[in-house]
Amino acid sequence: MKKVAVILAGCGVYDGAEINEAVLTLLHIAKAGASYQCFAPDIDQLHTINHLTGEEMAPNRNVLVEAARIARGDIKAITELKINEFDALIVPGGFGAAKNLSDFAVKGPAAQVQNDVLKACTDFVKANKAAGYMCIAPAMLPLIYGQGVKTTIGNDTDTASAIEKLGGDHQACAVDDIVIDEQHKVVTTPAYMLAQSLLDADAGIQKLVKKVLELA
Amino acid sequence: MKKVAVILAGCGVYDGAEINEAVLTLLHIAKAGASYQCFAPDIDQLHTINHLTGEEMAPNRNVLVEAARIARGDIKAITELKINEFDALIVPGGFGAAKNLSDFAVKGPAAQVQNDVLKACTDFVKANKAAGYMCIAPAMLPLIYGQGVKTTIGNDTDTASAIEKLGGDHQACAVDDIVIDEQHKVVTTPAYMLAQSLLDADAGIQKLVKKVLELA
Repeated sequence: MKKVAVILAGCGVYDGAEINEAVLTLLHIAKAGASYQCFAPDIDQLHTINHLTGEEMAPNRNVLVEAARIARGDIKAITELKINEFDALIVPGGFGAAKNLSDFAVKGPAAQVQNDVLKACTDFVKANKAAGYMCIAPAMLPLIYGQGVKTTIGNDTDTASAIEKLGGDHQACAVDDIVIDEQHKVVTTPAYMLAQSLLDADAGIQKLVKKVLELA
Repeated sequence: MKKVAVILAGCGVYDGAEINEAVLTLLHIAKAGASYQCFAPDIDQLHTINHLTGEEMAPNRNVLVEAARIARGDIKAITELKINEFDALIVPGGFGAAKNLSDFAVKGPAAQVQNDVLKACTDFVKANKAAGYMCIAPAMLPLIYGQGVKTTIGNDTDTASAIEKLGGDHQACAVDDIVIDEQHKVVTTPAYMLAQSLLDADAGIQKLVKKVLELA
């Protein structure tokens, strides 16, 4: 049975992992007959957003503690990820990917990936193991794979331009489709960068999970 | 297009709505060609649990504000639920159903349903509209439908006994199955009261949503 590491950026679209993307990722991994283990960095969130009003709220929350809500407590700190135990990596999106896993939301083309996250993601590159990134998480790819990596966040020109400045080769992509970089074994899909409904998100995520497991 | 009201008890299995159950509910409603609107009571949670450690944490959180994370902000206070706008009701589980929507987790056979939640759920009974309750949420049914309502939370004998004391007619049920009370038009499934995996939960929830929409 193939085993997938899933990195969560918290719990909630505006300051953490997009919840629907996270659950659909886990669902499609399970449906494909593979297993998963969730991970998150044990760090403070950039900030905490009241998802009813859209305003910042106090106190701030911890990424790992909040991500544990999606994983029903079955989650580990990302520093505990042992590359030898996994066949593939999948990173759902949500603003947390650009606020906690990296600072892309704040710094755009000058973004950096959080150190523990960069170490874990780079381990999959070095081991030549497959990975999938969705929604805004693909913005991190040039910083993980280097110049020229093929990636998509859908069709937002400002975001695509920032990714190109980071060194990525951005490809426009429909919500129900995926972009595959065969050389780097990395698959991306727009998910809620474009999705208007759960069905939209489900279509692209199902394809991404299937392709990542094929490459694994 | 049939429209379903979905009541969420927060965001997280130990103090709110079970996230996987909530997302699978919305997914299967959408897959069936129906639409949904999420609601939650605008009240404090019973308490807030750190889902990594299982311990209580401060400060406490608001049910509606946290449930908004699952609904991507598209959620209304339950007092705004207008029965004429909906064909059916579905209530996912998680401890929040027994801690926030009702006090069943604390009071067992002496439980009461939170006032605003009781009003909304009872509106569906009075209008003879279909409803589905999953996981621990079916424990509220005797308080909503009255004596003799058929219901299941799986096979936990202590919980089943408390439901019988409240006046419910508890039926043992497998995780991938549903219990139907045709007279009251109410469907229940054990979900994470029994589920060992997302696939387990998915099977029962898919059946529940299908049957509720048939009855609607």
